[in-house]
Amino acid sequence: VRHLSVALVGFGSVGRAFARLLLETDDRLRARHGLECTVTGVATRRHGVAIDRLGLDLATLLSIEPDGSLAELHCCPHAEDTVGFIREAAADVVIEATVLDVETGGAAVEHIRSAFAAGAHVVTANKGPIACAYRDLRALATASRRQFRFEGTVMDGAPVFNLVAETLPGCEVVGFSGVLNSTTNLLLTRMEQGASLDEALADARGRGIVEANPDHDIDGHDAAAKAAALVNVLMDGTVTPRDIPTIGIRRVTRDALDAEVQRGRRLRLVARAARRGDEIAVRVGPEALPEADALARLGGTSNALTLRTDLMGELTIVEHDPGIEQTAYALLSDLIAVGRAIGVRA
Amino acid sequence: VRHLSVALVGFGSVGRAFARLLLETDDRLRARHGLECTVTGVATRRHGVAIDRLGLDLATLLSIEPDGSLAELHCCPHAEDTVGFIREAAADVVIEATVLDVETGGAAVEHIRSAFAAGAHVVTANKGPIACAYRDLRALATASRRQFRFEGTVMDGAPVFNLVAETLPGCEVVGFSGVLNSTTNLLLTRMEQGASLDEALADARGRGIVEANPDHDIDGHDAAAKAAALVNVLMDGTVTPRDIPTIGIRRVTRDALDAEVQRGRRLRLVARAARRGDEIAVRVGPEALPEADALARLGGTSNALTLRTDLMGELTIVEHDPGIEQTAYALLSDLIAVGRAIGVRA
Repeated sequence: VRHLSVALVGFGSVGRAFARLLLETDDRLRARHGLECTVTGVATRRHGVAIDRLGLDLATLLSIEPDGSLAELHCCPHAEDTVGFIREAAADVVIEATVLDVETGGAAVEHIRSAFAAGAHVVTANKGPIACAYRDLRALATASRRQFRFEGTVMDGAPVFNLVAETLPGCEVVGFSGVLNSTTNLLLTRMEQGASLDEALADARGRGIVEANPDHDIDGHDAAAKAAALVNVLMDGTVTPRDIPTIGIRRVTRDALDAEVQRGRRLRLVARAARRGDEIAVRVGPEALPEADALARLGGTSNALTLRTDLMGELTIVEHDPGIEQTAYALLSDLIAVGRAIGVRA
Repeated sequence: VRHLSVALVGFGSVGRAFARLLLETDDRLRARHGLECTVTGVATRRHGVAIDRLGLDLATLLSIEPDGSLAELHCCPHAEDTVGFIREAAADVVIEATVLDVETGGAAVEHIRSAFAAGAHVVTANKGPIACAYRDLRALATASRRQFRFEGTVMDGAPVFNLVAETLPGCEVVGFSGVLNSTTNLLLTRMEQGASLDEALADARGRGIVEANPDHDIDGHDAAAKAAALVNVLMDGTVTPRDIPTIGIRRVTRDALDAEVQRGRRLRLVARAARRGDEIAVRVGPEALPEADALARLGGTSNALTLRTDLMGELTIVEHDPGIEQTAYALLSDLIAVGRAIGVRA
């Protein structure tokens, strides 16, 4: 059994869901994957830091209210910065789970740089860094000989990056189309059923599905960030979300949705990319898809990605009604992948 | 660059498509995967055997008519049996691509045993052995420390077994539902458009899509073999196709299809399994699926599999209108996976 010390940077809903999953799957990780994972540090922006190299108790961590302070769990000298925090926690793996800044990648990019500087492997579900700074971070990971894993950034725990890297060897991805934003898919589904955009939003808010400020989703920026991540990783591109022509669903009306249904089509927010010679064309916007398209029939918060490859034709992967548990699973699967990559086999 | 000698057992349409793909991807395999693959032997039941340890010329092999003899390419003493053939060919990897016998696994099971006995890794797209003799063959592979790969047996080159093994670590598959037989899916699609079963069959035959004898597909036996393979590998079950209650589409009428469409559903031939305590319930038969189901609207020869997991919820993988090239890709991807598993990295 190989021991891995894990430090969490960020402890919001995703970090907490991951901690719960780690607690639940403790026995399984040891028995099946030869991994014994201990959380030795948790750093938050507003609720303090806790470090204990012997291991923080996950149940106690989870019992702290989201507004509470982690200070009582802290057993170590104070760390000056993120590199210091990771070193104090003696972390083998850093789980980056802070708030998204999709314009620049935000603090998450610095956290990831710090983790490599401190000699740790990195796992993240934060799409900002992959959309905005992938090449640099990949080069850093290579130079420091550390694993850099981010399966959760596009479709939560549904395999996208690992799908191509591990199960489609020798294939080249020549393009893709995806319904990648759960919120807009839910809104469009509700509007097809007769709600206005505002009513659909209020409904989704009531169910806790959209953020307090859903503009990021509605205006297509979340989908654009995911498209950038896919282009950068799967097609070796160099785009940022700002480079991608993006139209959201704000101007989509019930009449427009109805008209498409009458024609046997469905309006969906689609992220699309295709290689054209040396260029990669990328765009995000509402598209009328024929009903036979695997992306057309997605209901609720489901999302899907169709990959076009040179040797294997077209493949679609669909994730059904994902929630926070699926994002937590993405982090867990990346953690197991780190274990495999550094030579741990049960 | 690591050299791999490859022997083909069976050289029908799948074997030929694989040889064409190997010829096309020669440079890519060397540059990206560090593999130099040489076909050193081809064995057929009715058209002789060719062995050349220095490498058979693929273009010449492919220029021989399907009815022609391989004898002119043969450079070696005659091999007595399959083990002898594999030894004479000095094969590192055996590609088993003979005709399917789904009742017993047929000669393919013996070919695979012979390959392990001769010290070779095995790659196959033949579902018989996985449906009928998986446990034994897996044990043999483990005991002889050889790779045993069979991604193409269900859904051609679309990842199914590798999807679970490589991209869903820690997840348990608790059930699945799949539209796994391309022929019946095409027939049902045509019947929905107004054809009778016989008309649909004639049409599909004209397009070269169904076998001379399509009973195996129509009566559900192909789907049952694939269901058995999935249960045995993904759910650690021990079933054979004969154990699976199977109903085909022979009694499905246009009226029945129409009636379901009127109710907003689609009749499809579904293979379904679910873990119930210590048991696994499996069945194959026509089911009326709601249109929102990802399996309901597959057209043409497309197929799809929805996996139910404990940690990742539900995932669907869809393969769009596959042909023989996708089966050939399955063999190629398994060959690359063998290279990776034995430590070859570009």
